[in-house]
Amino acid sequence: MESARKLTLAELNSMDAAAFTAALGEVCENATWIVSAAAARRPFASVDALRAALRAAIRAAPVERQTAFVAGHPDLAGKAARAGDMTDDSVAEQAGAGLDSLTEAGYARFHALNDAYRRKFGFPFIVCVRRHSRDSILATFERRLAQSAPVEFDTALGEIDRIVALRLDTRVEGVTGVHGRLSTHVLDTHLGQPAPGVAVELRELSDSGAPRVVARMETNADGRTDAPLIGGRPLPIGRYEVTFAIGAYFAARGLELPEPPFLDVVPLRFGVAEAEGHYHVPLLATPWSYATYRGS
Amino acid sequence: MESARKLTLAELNSMDAAAFTAALGEVCENATWIVSAAAARRPFASVDALRAALRAAIRAAPVERQTAFVAGHPDLAGKAARAGDMTDDSVAEQAGAGLDSLTEAGYARFHALNDAYRRKFGFPFIVCVRRHSRDSILATFERRLAQSAPVEFDTALGEIDRIVALRLDTRVEGVTGVHGRLSTHVLDTHLGQPAPGVAVELRELSDSGAPRVVARMETNADGRTDAPLIGGRPLPIGRYEVTFAIGAYFAARGLELPEPPFLDVVPLRFGVAEAEGHYHVPLLATPWSYATYRGS
Amino acid sequence: MESARKLTLAELNSMDAAAFTAALGEVCENATWIVSAAAARRPFASVDALRAALRAAIRAAPVERQTAFVAGHPDLAGKAARAGDMTDDSVAEQAGAGLDSLTEAGYARFHALNDAYRRKFGFPFIVCVRRHSRDSILATFERRLAQSAPVEFDTALGEIDRIVALRLDTRVEGVTGVHGRLSTHVLDTHLGQPAPGVAVELRELSDSGAPRVVARMETNADGRTDAPLIGGRPLPIGRYEVTFAIGAYFAARGLELPEPPFLDVVPLRFGVAEAEGHYHVPLLATPWSYATYRGS
Amino acid sequence: MESARKLTLAELNSMDAAAFTAALGEVCENATWIVSAAAARRPFASVDALRAALRAAIRAAPVERQTAFVAGHPDLAGKAARAGDMTDDSVAEQAGAGLDSLTEAGYARFHALNDAYRRKFGFPFIVCVRRHSRDSILATFERRLAQSAPVEFDTALGEIDRIVALRLDTRVEGVTGVHGRLSTHVLDTHLGQPAPGVAVELRELSDSGAPRVVARMETNADGRTDAPLIGGRPLPIGRYEVTFAIGAYFAARGLELPEPPFLDVVPLRFGVAEAEGHYHVPLLATPWSYATYRGS
Repeated sequence: MESARKLTLAELNSMDAAAFTAALGEVCENATWIVSAAAARRPFASVDALRAALRAAIRAAPVERQTAFVAGHPDLAGKAARAGDMTDDSVAEQAGAGLDSLTEAGYARFHALNDAYRRKFGFPFIVCVRRHSRDSILATFERRLAQSAPVEFDTALGEIDRIVALRLDTRVEGVTGVHGRLSTHVLDTHLGQPAPGVAVELRELSDSGAPRVVARMETNADGRTDAPLIGGRPLPIGRYEVTFAIGAYFAARGLELPEPPFLDVVPLRFGVAEAEGHYHVPLLATPWSYATYRGS
Repeated sequence: MESARKLTLAELNSMDAAAFTAALGEVCENATWIVSAAAARRPFASVDALRAALRAAIRAAPVERQTAFVAGHPDLAGKAARAGDMTDDSVAEQAGAGLDSLTEAGYARFHALNDAYRRKFGFPFIVCVRRHSRDSILATFERRLAQSAPVEFDTALGEIDRIVALRLDTRVEGVTGVHGRLSTHVLDTHLGQPAPGVAVELRELSDSGAPRVVARMETNADGRTDAPLIGGRPLPIGRYEVTFAIGAYFAARGLELPEPPFLDVVPLRFGVAEAEGHYHVPLLATPWSYATYRGS
Repeated sequence: MESARKLTLAELNSMDAAAFTAALGEVCENATWIVSAAAARRPFASVDALRAALRAAIRAAPVERQTAFVAGHPDLAGKAARAGDMTDDSVAEQAGAGLDSLTEAGYARFHALNDAYRRKFGFPFIVCVRRHSRDSILATFERRLAQSAPVEFDTALGEIDRIVALRLDTRVEGVTGVHGRLSTHVLDTHLGQPAPGVAVELRELSDSGAPRVVARMETNADGRTDAPLIGGRPLPIGRYEVTFAIGAYFAARGLELPEPPFLDVVPLRFGVAEAEGHYHVPLLATPWSYATYRGS
Repeated sequence: MESARKLTLAELNSMDAAAFTAALGEVCENATWIVSAAAARRPFASVDALRAALRAAIRAAPVERQTAFVAGHPDLAGKAARAGDMTDDSVAEQAGAGLDSLTEAGYARFHALNDAYRRKFGFPFIVCVRRHSRDSILATFERRLAQSAPVEFDTALGEIDRIVALRLDTRVEGVTGVHGRLSTHVLDTHLGQPAPGVAVELRELSDSGAPRVVARMETNADGRTDAPLIGGRPLPIGRYEVTFAIGAYFAARGLELPEPPFLDVVPLRFGVAEAEGHYHVPLLATPWSYATYRGS
């Protein structure tokens, strides 16, 4: 959950252990013992060292305790979610990925996978959902269901480390390497200048559901959006379409365009594979041509 | 209707008048008198001269006869269509524009426009539907409903001339200036060569209905399609989306692409405003960039 | 002349008048009376206000004094230059534009223009040479020679204001609106990433002389140059060619290229018309294609 | 030499042997015995079969005769050339590659290579010069000088086969696979139409000499040149620059451009590695951007 103010590492290092555990409590799903173990390792030289201490506390625990911890995670789009029986972090994470608004068929698909997964491995499927779209969660689910139990248990711990890092990021200053960035700009190569006032809409595409609008913005005087299309968080791995209302832009410049115009709302469809990557997807356009590329 | 073999101008010039009228009968909707009048003007030096003679016969007729001729045309998406009560040409033309498959709401919209139009002008709305998509027929309908009666009657005769020209084109060799052309090619700028085997799909977009697939093709060794996406007919004025399965193409070349790939099925959306124009809409692509333009 | 350290406006406002005049002495060519007049107008709220005060002092002077001031400027590429008889600022400015290295024919052209200009107007031709290339100085010279005397005198005062502003910029913090910027970046659209290590060379082209190398750089990890190709000064109005050793770049990436490669050293030729503008001239390239545009 | 009219294969098949040998005499440099041997193999089913017969006649000859034949070829840019002592074909071929207009340093370089080559192999360096520019002849010369004698003798016979094919092509209808093609077109993506009236100039670049103008043309109504920039012959392997006077084109369209314009004469520099390939090098331009690619 977004807290009112992020803590500094210095504050965390100087708290008493109880306050530390209270502050970072939900960082590890239903398992404050991990936070308590890390508390004893203070002071930390960096937030990365804190993250590593939490990871080490899990890995150092007896297998039974690890297993119980893993088993304490909620199913994705599962009964706990519907019954309102999850930590606040889990609720926010699952909603953010669109898992709170699946069709009945979508729920059925998740339940079937959850059941098959639990039957095979004995614990719930854990994935860092903030790094994924609905489609890539399903693809990952199916891929991981085919893994062997030891490999899958290790994979689950790796995902937990990612979840922990993002939960730390909402509570502590200075978490690094957990955000991606999706940005754009529009260049009017008809007039040789940035294109201001272009309506831009980003939608997440899905094989198993309707597109979800992720951002609606307008380009500024530099032909850029004031904020990135996605920023300050991982990029959900998945497929996207960004549209640019370039016909309206050129009409507003007073150009005589045919009816209908050759170019009106230009769509760019692209995939994001690196959740922590930087994707720059510009549009260079005239009324009769355009180009795009993955830039930097 | 597509005839088994097109007649030559020489054949038309040398037939007796009855055969000529029989051959070109339905060219003018329910009005063989126009064809008979033109028969008397033979021989024609060109098919354009034949077309002009038909046009002149209409314009030279008394107003009552012109009015009766115009009134003899069927409504668009009207009761005649549903009752199977139109000339074969009209049936084919209206079906070609998708007017045989409107939703009930679509039919209702057309009926309301038909009624308003008949009330205002006293004759049915006539438009050369083969030059239009559903969207542009509706836009044209609304625009023309606002015209004065004399202007609209003249517009209707102009549309009839276009209909006649296209009906001639199915029966006679050498009709010119009535076809448009929509073509594409795919260039792989990663390897610097034409891209063969790319799946290409063209769809007509509509505000008032589902997209209609117009063509499904694959690029050949030259990166072109064996036939134009639309050819041998006018281009229906409207909005289109053509998609290129460029991700599958690059994967088949053995390139390692991320999952999901940055570019997979690339959509280009464009408008056609000139029914008799040549639109060339190519795709120049790498796995990380693409460009398109209206070419020639 | 580049001074050791720039003065702040506060320092200039608090100096005594003699120190102020000493500090800004050469700002107005051989005319400390202008600086003294401005000294009396202190304090200035901004460097722009100081510039305006210098401009006002000139405009407020009697015509004889204005004329003497204007006449006190050296000829371009003239005898004073060859005799080492100019202020240090003038020497640096003329050398920066390449006027110290003209061919004999070039000198002859300048002398002929200088003579014609002095004959017509009675004072030397004054232009802010740091805003110009050799070609644009000559083009400007010829254009201005055709003006009427009053218009030309006003034009000369306007150029002096630009010269003063740039001389202030070397001595005082906070001068604005006098710099342009020419930048580039190289994007490898074959691999979908910035292109590092590409040798970039910028040359000023000239009708009347050999190209002059202006900058030689290499792209960094972001595909950009560490510094702009031209920055911290006006862009000399003129024609340029920037070359990118893209063949060597792709060869170094291990790509098999034909011999000779399709693209090796790619030249972009462009004109700069706005001395204070921002020109961004990127290259997007594969081994088989490239694109450029005026970006921002 | 270009003959008044090309012979058909049927004519060649039906001539008597003496006429056949007279007709194709110089096809094999100073060696009519090869043509005579091929004459006995008639009739040929194709011109390729005729070419193969000439090749086979050489390969079937005793080594001494092969060696004498090879030795009968003139040096490149050698004394025979300067003394006017070569077959007409050789004169035309060497002149076509610019070998008749080398600088003294260029001649010296060729003489040194000729001498080294003759010292090592005992016969003159033979290369199909119509497939090469000055630069690529020199590069080839140096590469081949490093080969072993048997490999080099075989390479020389291969080059003779190419020379023979091109000489046949000037005399006989139906020679295939010996021509390349370099073409262009200019698309105005500012107006979305082909760009007519654009001055296009193609120059062959050289490390060891001045650029040679190869073609000067203007684009037609389709934005293409009426003839290819190079066609009906092999493309000389080498480096080229084609320029497009796009600034003048846009100015003529009435666009207000800055002075100097951002784009004026746009150069594209590219290499040709496949003498029999098809290189299409288009320009897509606005006043502020352009793109090019190897098309097809």
